[in-house]
Amino acid sequence: MCGIVGMVGNGPVNQEIYDALLLLQHRGQDSTGIATAESSGVFHMHKANGQVREAFRTRDMRALLGNIGLGHVRYATRGNASREEEAQPFYVNAPYGLVLVHNGNLTNTRELTDELFHRDRRHLNTNSDTELLVNVLANELQASITGIPLHADQVFEAVERVHERVEGSYAAIALVAGHGLLAFRDPFGIRPLILGVRRGDAGESDEWVVASESLVLENAGFEVVRDVAPGEAVFIDLDGVLHAKQCAKDPQLFPCSFEYVYLARPDSVMNGIAVYETRLRMGERLADTIAKYTPREAIDVVMPIPDSARPAAMQVARKLGIEYREGFYKNRYVGRTFIMPGQAERKKSVRQKLNAMPSEFAGKNVLLIDDSIVRGTTSKQIIQMARDAGAKSVTFASAAPPVRYPHVYGINMPSRHELVAHGRTIPEVAEELGCDYLVYQEVEDLRAAILEGSDIVDLDMSCFDGRYVTGTVSDEYLAWVEGSQQS
Amino acid sequence: MCGIVGMVGNGPVNQEIYDALLLLQHRGQDSTGIATAESSGVFHMHKANGQVREAFRTRDMRALLGNIGLGHVRYATRGNASREEEAQPFYVNAPYGLVLVHNGNLTNTRELTDELFHRDRRHLNTNSDTELLVNVLANELQASITGIPLHADQVFEAVERVHERVEGSYAAIALVAGHGLLAFRDPFGIRPLILGVRRGDAGESDEWVVASESLVLENAGFEVVRDVAPGEAVFIDLDGVLHAKQCAKDPQLFPCSFEYVYLARPDSVMNGIAVYETRLRMGERLADTIAKYTPREAIDVVMPIPDSARPAAMQVARKLGIEYREGFYKNRYVGRTFIMPGQAERKKSVRQKLNAMPSEFAGKNVLLIDDSIVRGTTSKQIIQMARDAGAKSVTFASAAPPVRYPHVYGINMPSRHELVAHGRTIPEVAEELGCDYLVYQEVEDLRAAILEGSDIVDLDMSCFDGRYVTGTVSDEYLAWVEGSQQS
Amino acid sequence: MCGIVGMVGNGPVNQEIYDALLLLQHRGQDSTGIATAESSGVFHMHKANGQVREAFRTRDMRALLGNIGLGHVRYATRGNASREEEAQPFYVNAPYGLVLVHNGNLTNTRELTDELFHRDRRHLNTNSDTELLVNVLANELQASITGIPLHADQVFEAVERVHERVEGSYAAIALVAGHGLLAFRDPFGIRPLILGVRRGDAGESDEWVVASESLVLENAGFEVVRDVAPGEAVFIDLDGVLHAKQCAKDPQLFPCSFEYVYLARPDSVMNGIAVYETRLRMGERLADTIAKYTPREAIDVVMPIPDSARPAAMQVARKLGIEYREGFYKNRYVGRTFIMPGQAERKKSVRQKLNAMPSEFAGKNVLLIDDSIVRGTTSKQIIQMARDAGAKSVTFASAAPPVRYPHVYGINMPSRHELVAHGRTIPEVAEELGCDYLVYQEVEDLRAAILEGSDIVDLDMSCFDGRYVTGTVSDEYLAWVEGSQQS
Amino acid sequence: MCGIVGMVGNGPVNQEIYDALLLLQHRGQDSTGIATAESSGVFHMHKANGQVREAFRTRDMRALLGNIGLGHVRYATRGNASREEEAQPFYVNAPYGLVLVHNGNLTNTRELTDELFHRDRRHLNTNSDTELLVNVLANELQASITGIPLHADQVFEAVERVHERVEGSYAAIALVAGHGLLAFRDPFGIRPLILGVRRGDAGESDEWVVASESLVLENAGFEVVRDVAPGEAVFIDLDGVLHAKQCAKDPQLFPCSFEYVYLARPDSVMNGIAVYETRLRMGERLADTIAKYTPREAIDVVMPIPDSARPAAMQVARKLGIEYREGFYKNRYVGRTFIMPGQAERKKSVRQKLNAMPSEFAGKNVLLIDDSIVRGTTSKQIIQMARDAGAKSVTFASAAPPVRYPHVYGINMPSRHELVAHGRTIPEVAEELGCDYLVYQEVEDLRAAILEGSDIVDLDMSCFDGRYVTGTVSDEYLAWVEGSQQS
Repeated sequence: MCGIVGMVGNGPVNQEIYDALLLLQHRGQDSTGIATAESSGVFHMHKANGQVREAFRTRDMRALLGNIGLGHVRYATRGNASREEEAQPFYVNAPYGLVLVHNGNLTNTRELTDELFHRDRRHLNTNSDTELLVNVLANELQASITGIPLHADQVFEAVERVHERVEGSYAAIALVAGHGLLAFRDPFGIRPLILGVRRGDAGESDEWVVASESLVLENAGFEVVRDVAPGEAVFIDLDGVLHAKQCAKDPQLFPCSFEYVYLARPDSVMNGIAVYETRLRMGERLADTIAKYTPREAIDVVMPIPDSARPAAMQVARKLGIEYREGFYKNRYVGRTFIMPGQAERKKSVRQKLNAMPSEFAGKNVLLIDDSIVRGTTSKQIIQMARDAGAKSVTFASAAPPVRYPHVYGINMPSRHELVAHGRTIPEVAEELGCDYLVYQEVEDLRAAILEGSDIVDLDMSCFDGRYVTGTVSDEYLAWVEGSQQS
Repeated sequence: MCGIVGMVGNGPVNQEIYDALLLLQHRGQDSTGIATAESSGVFHMHKANGQVREAFRTRDMRALLGNIGLGHVRYATRGNASREEEAQPFYVNAPYGLVLVHNGNLTNTRELTDELFHRDRRHLNTNSDTELLVNVLANELQASITGIPLHADQVFEAVERVHERVEGSYAAIALVAGHGLLAFRDPFGIRPLILGVRRGDAGESDEWVVASESLVLENAGFEVVRDVAPGEAVFIDLDGVLHAKQCAKDPQLFPCSFEYVYLARPDSVMNGIAVYETRLRMGERLADTIAKYTPREAIDVVMPIPDSARPAAMQVARKLGIEYREGFYKNRYVGRTFIMPGQAERKKSVRQKLNAMPSEFAGKNVLLIDDSIVRGTTSKQIIQMARDAGAKSVTFASAAPPVRYPHVYGINMPSRHELVAHGRTIPEVAEELGCDYLVYQEVEDLRAAILEGSDIVDLDMSCFDGRYVTGTVSDEYLAWVEGSQQS
Repeated sequence: MCGIVGMVGNGPVNQEIYDALLLLQHRGQDSTGIATAESSGVFHMHKANGQVREAFRTRDMRALLGNIGLGHVRYATRGNASREEEAQPFYVNAPYGLVLVHNGNLTNTRELTDELFHRDRRHLNTNSDTELLVNVLANELQASITGIPLHADQVFEAVERVHERVEGSYAAIALVAGHGLLAFRDPFGIRPLILGVRRGDAGESDEWVVASESLVLENAGFEVVRDVAPGEAVFIDLDGVLHAKQCAKDPQLFPCSFEYVYLARPDSVMNGIAVYETRLRMGERLADTIAKYTPREAIDVVMPIPDSARPAAMQVARKLGIEYREGFYKNRYVGRTFIMPGQAERKKSVRQKLNAMPSEFAGKNVLLIDDSIVRGTTSKQIIQMARDAGAKSVTFASAAPPVRYPHVYGINMPSRHELVAHGRTIPEVAEELGCDYLVYQEVEDLRAAILEGSDIVDLDMSCFDGRYVTGTVSDEYLAWVEGSQQS
Repeated sequence: MCGIVGMVGNGPVNQEIYDALLLLQHRGQDSTGIATAESSGVFHMHKANGQVREAFRTRDMRALLGNIGLGHVRYATRGNASREEEAQPFYVNAPYGLVLVHNGNLTNTRELTDELFHRDRRHLNTNSDTELLVNVLANELQASITGIPLHADQVFEAVERVHERVEGSYAAIALVAGHGLLAFRDPFGIRPLILGVRRGDAGESDEWVVASESLVLENAGFEVVRDVAPGEAVFIDLDGVLHAKQCAKDPQLFPCSFEYVYLARPDSVMNGIAVYETRLRMGERLADTIAKYTPREAIDVVMPIPDSARPAAMQVARKLGIEYREGFYKNRYVGRTFIMPGQAERKKSVRQKLNAMPSEFAGKNVLLIDDSIVRGTTSKQIIQMARDAGAKSVTFASAAPPVRYPHVYGINMPSRHELVAHGRTIPEVAEELGCDYLVYQEVEDLRAAILEGSDIVDLDMSCFDGRYVTGTVSDEYLAWVEGSQQS
């Protein structure tokens, strides 16, 4: 998972992109990058490991000249998180000069690598699939060129062929030197991308933004135009004129359900669906399932695991008519472990991030709500923490269904055998976690909670149901991914 | 406000002090410093602006050799936050070699500066009152010396005279080169300091810690021995033996009430009083006052301003029997504003840190609970934000009484005229803030909420009632402080 | 002027390239860069402003993995010395992935920029002519591709077309990802490039080096193979096999005479001519001219301006039978001027770098020898310094002829109107400099001094005689260069 | 050996001190430090490892406010060169606040450390004898205080007692916060210190400088007042008024002969003796000795080892009537060795710094002149280099006598057993070095060469004759020094 933003403004965009990346920081904290372009076509770029506020100094910001630009916060899903060379954006200098940022994950990387090397003679200096994507785009743009200057139509032709060659999930933003800003989204719209505008005063151009989440628009005073459609490409030229075209043959919206479960900020609206509302609805539906599977007297209080499970927990409490309490305190500050010569690495426990208030637990039957359970290691520690704080019994409920399959569309999920629910029944998982009762959201309830009131037909729920919408994710592929992660 | 920690261990203490400072990070984020001492008496020190994780690199940590050390996170109360020279610890090299960290604020700094310069010929290179404190201690320790080696009694004599010379609040920890670790607390115990131990195995020394908050002990596996008493000094020698003595003539415990209101982490226990429980009790008593002053139908839901008001808000909701909701989302990530050449500074609004969920506000009469109201500027913006999100009416309640007087004991509170409640009646404040109803905790209720079940007699509540326990804080002093802050 | 080096080794080359750049440091001190390639084709690169020892930290060196690599020290001739983005090497990722370093200066940059942009759609992000060169090479290599893998012949074809498109001087080294190291020299061989080998033991590959000067070879234990011929390209594949081909239609060696006058280290052998020996011969011939134009009694002692004029001065002294003395002390350490707020920049005088020993000058008629006179400002200050130190009279002699024309082949020489000898007779220059007598080397004597004993036919002496061997350097071009330097 | 400078100006002194340190850079390259004081008494200090230009960034310089200051370049003689904590200046905060820099070496450090610790209870955090010196000064200044403000007489009293307590060599400069600049020199004047003034215009104060070498004065436009006398102290108050007093009981000038042999820059005048002239005279006297001990036909040419032996070599050549040639080229640029993981450290040879021109050596009997021979390892390599370059025979001559004893007054000279001349006859040394003939200056000739024309009576020549002027340097002491260097 990553966060991306692009802007075309009437003045310098560096500070606005920086501010936008801060708002997207929850989507990735491994590295940060910004690129800007001057109207002459000269690019400026700075990228570094770490969060936004760690990665940029005043001198770095001052060098980012230009009224058009893009930015990226990275959560490593592929390749090595600590290799600064894998930080985005990526740059290629022909044709025109391109810089690109990308949220998502390509699933035919082996084929693309091979093609790029053997057919296109392009050099890939990292294992980043973003480097693949910018090279495929460059290649196809090269092939589209018919005259001078570049027209939006040529760009769209190139994106059409990118859709044909590339598989997986991708929301991408690129700068084309001397021409404008391009943004496009894969034909299934798995990863989010939203378009906003600040209408210019008389004589001024409009200013545009594309970003992973709507709160970027809201915060910077842009009005929402719409989500970029699955398969669509938008191109904003240097005069601030928007061009848009559907570039996929058979586009269909399958947004990633995990955005609603956990990834997105609650104050975002994604594909027309308010994230916060979906989380409330998840709580309501989860309450019914809890009521079905646990005796009423097994629960004295409902507690969220902060912060993301709070809305669901509030609704569970309201619907079950049980008191809502906050028994955990979350520590906001994290630091590093320094390995001194001769010392071994120490394991950081969940206790450094979470603390239980004994008076909330002592002698009570507690129902803990979390947004989801992936590996189960954190849940296990939290359950033990509740017991240590005096809980009489611990019921654990997940606002998402069991995660039984890898997420190959841009979330760094472990190998199948590391997923606690992979190959286990719910009672077996409960035993592994050490809770008295364990309740999961039903798959159909999650789908309904997200889609209620929307005209969207379906979602990517592959990590829950094993159905991969892009069609080419085989067991062989999953085994390869698991193998390459271990190395 | 600052956070301090000191340790005497059987192995290197650098990583443990670093971890402790992370846990105390909420007490100060302006600068960070650690000093350690080798048994030979050689000190190592690193201090820098910024939070813990920003201020220390691997090479800095590696240089911090020794089994005894101390650390500090700073929230600038006096002097210039951005001057790295004012970061703690402070070092003086005679007698013995001392490094010292300090949480609190001295109120007779003008007299001390004068004495140190004219009588003691000591040079003060900054405006930090910590530099004053370490110099007074050094001076008095010099005067105590009778032979070699230094005895704990001599150290205690010096602390006695420090208590006589120094006025204000101070919890302090010092290393005496080649001898041990000293910790002491002012005769009114205004600022907190707690002592912990890890009993050594057979043949091993005990390991000791002193820290601003108990959670440091809990997290690192120390058992709580007790709070350092007001006026008391403890000295742990290099063999891990604890010496303790009451060094004040007429000590009396007046802990700072603001620790319970806002400063301390809820999972800390301070002076035997669990912070979280006091916040719950503040909520209960506030509920009564709210019920007294606002019509029941004026409130549909109760909401906390996250994070610190959550416990109080939960109790208000429970006691009033009104639904508790979380309508605000708090952004965890903050960054800097870069001033580009030719640009003016932009004002950061509260919207960058807080966002309202419209569905929680639309058409509702909301009761917002905050821990306290100081300047009122944030409260005003939050109230407006609730209205913008659709609230029908907004009642605002503060879990603390009106802040009408400066806090001179270590919290960076503004001049009297900047306090929204200074010289205003409650209705006038309500009008200023723009809320429909405004309710403050009663002063006696706050006192009772904190002291309930404790045998502590009184608190420092000076910012609420204008009664300064150290006795020497005059109008002339307050005017001087306000004047020097403006310059 | 710049220094370049490339290596293909049997082990890591980073430290050897670093050491080589130190030996070439006299050729450029504005920025330093190294790129290496792993056998997998992955590049690693680090470049920064400043001298070698300033630009590289341990962590930078450790990241430079691979047994093949190249390096560059830069003396800014075009573009902005302080823009880190103009530091070499330059990278393009298609075809194959290329990094390139370059010593020299292209003279048809306007045409190339235009072609690259309009025809080849390549983006140039800087004003560096090295970025032009790597893009032309990339373009032509793209056009040469017929199959997989790349053959040396295809590389040579590309170089052939580079020779056709590019004008000016260039000695260049490039890495082709996954294939090998390419080095080539312009068809007139203006800038130097020499090839060396360390023969591998049984079963081991040979190791190769190409560098600007022979002393790199000598110092690292390589034996000299030969100078790369004008127009020739050499390609060393990953198995350490050397391929070589003449790629120019009508190559002819015109080495830059200024290398012998000033640029090269005296212990280098360039195009088969030992630099030190040429400087001795320049002294001998200069002695004759001095004898012709100055009365014998006008000179009591001969003194060099240290360090480069020393060999010539020794020979002048010997041939004239006059005592050789060292009257100037040269300070090795230079630093920066810091502009404090409110201060104006201060002018650094030659006195900070040179000091005169009064006893060597007092009452003497001195003959000062310098390698050349360009602007004349330094010479003027030195002459005044000699007078201040007590010289009775000052004769000044230049081992090179009058510099009357710009040097467009890679030396940062000022506009024509800034050259003290441009448009002035020798007596006029003498008056301007303030010396009693002024003697210049004759143009033919310089040519003879360099070429004596060599079978090389001619030299580039354009800055002395205005004859530009590349044929396309017009007055219009010189005016454009002068104009763009001023802006 | 170190270089020191202090200034009292009418404007900011930071840039002038920086420029002065560059001129003194030859005296030390391990670390650099500057401290300044504002008239309010606030100190600013920056010190770091490395040469001047490496150690200071713009922001460091900008923070060095004030019209009075001092600086230091360090050549580690004691303690660990790489420990940044040992960089000068050193600061103590009582009495008054002192910062001090020091050139020299104390020989009773063991006694002083003991006294400071046991009697004065002062903490020494490093092994630096400068930290000792500033603490002794602080202690004695504390004892001198009678009233307020501080008078120059009190400062002089303190220096008197410093002379009594401290043994060894020391030229020192200190700032006394709020009062002025103090400079003093040990009672034997072993290390140099010179005083200069820039007379103020009407209404302006005079500006003062003290520095290790006169060229600092000359370069910055100060006129020489005089050398600070042995045992003398000068104190310049904040009004720019100079106070001076002889503070030693029985002062006697014994300047270090090694300054003239090697340390000082040739353009300095030290104790009234021009360094350059002494080196010429060393050459003249050495010529006589060479003539006495070597057959005339054994020498075809005379060559210096650059740079410091040049003046002596010129005089040897002139006096012997043999041609002077420069056969060695000296490389100015040096860098680091990076230890890659798994690699061993490589030995840097003298070849990286020196290169021989074959044509100057081929078939010739060469006489090489160096300033001195210490360990002999460099000389041995140079002799071999001359032979490799074709020399028929190599005669080696040292402008200084055999170094047979450690230099304890501030030059980092090895243990006795590492000195090639320790315990060896001259023929044995010649054999060890591998030269055909070896000639050393006679001890009395060195003395005469330096003192000729001066009324100074004697010199410190301890490393040649084993006579230590401070009287307390025993065999036991030398053995202790050698032992502690090895650890």
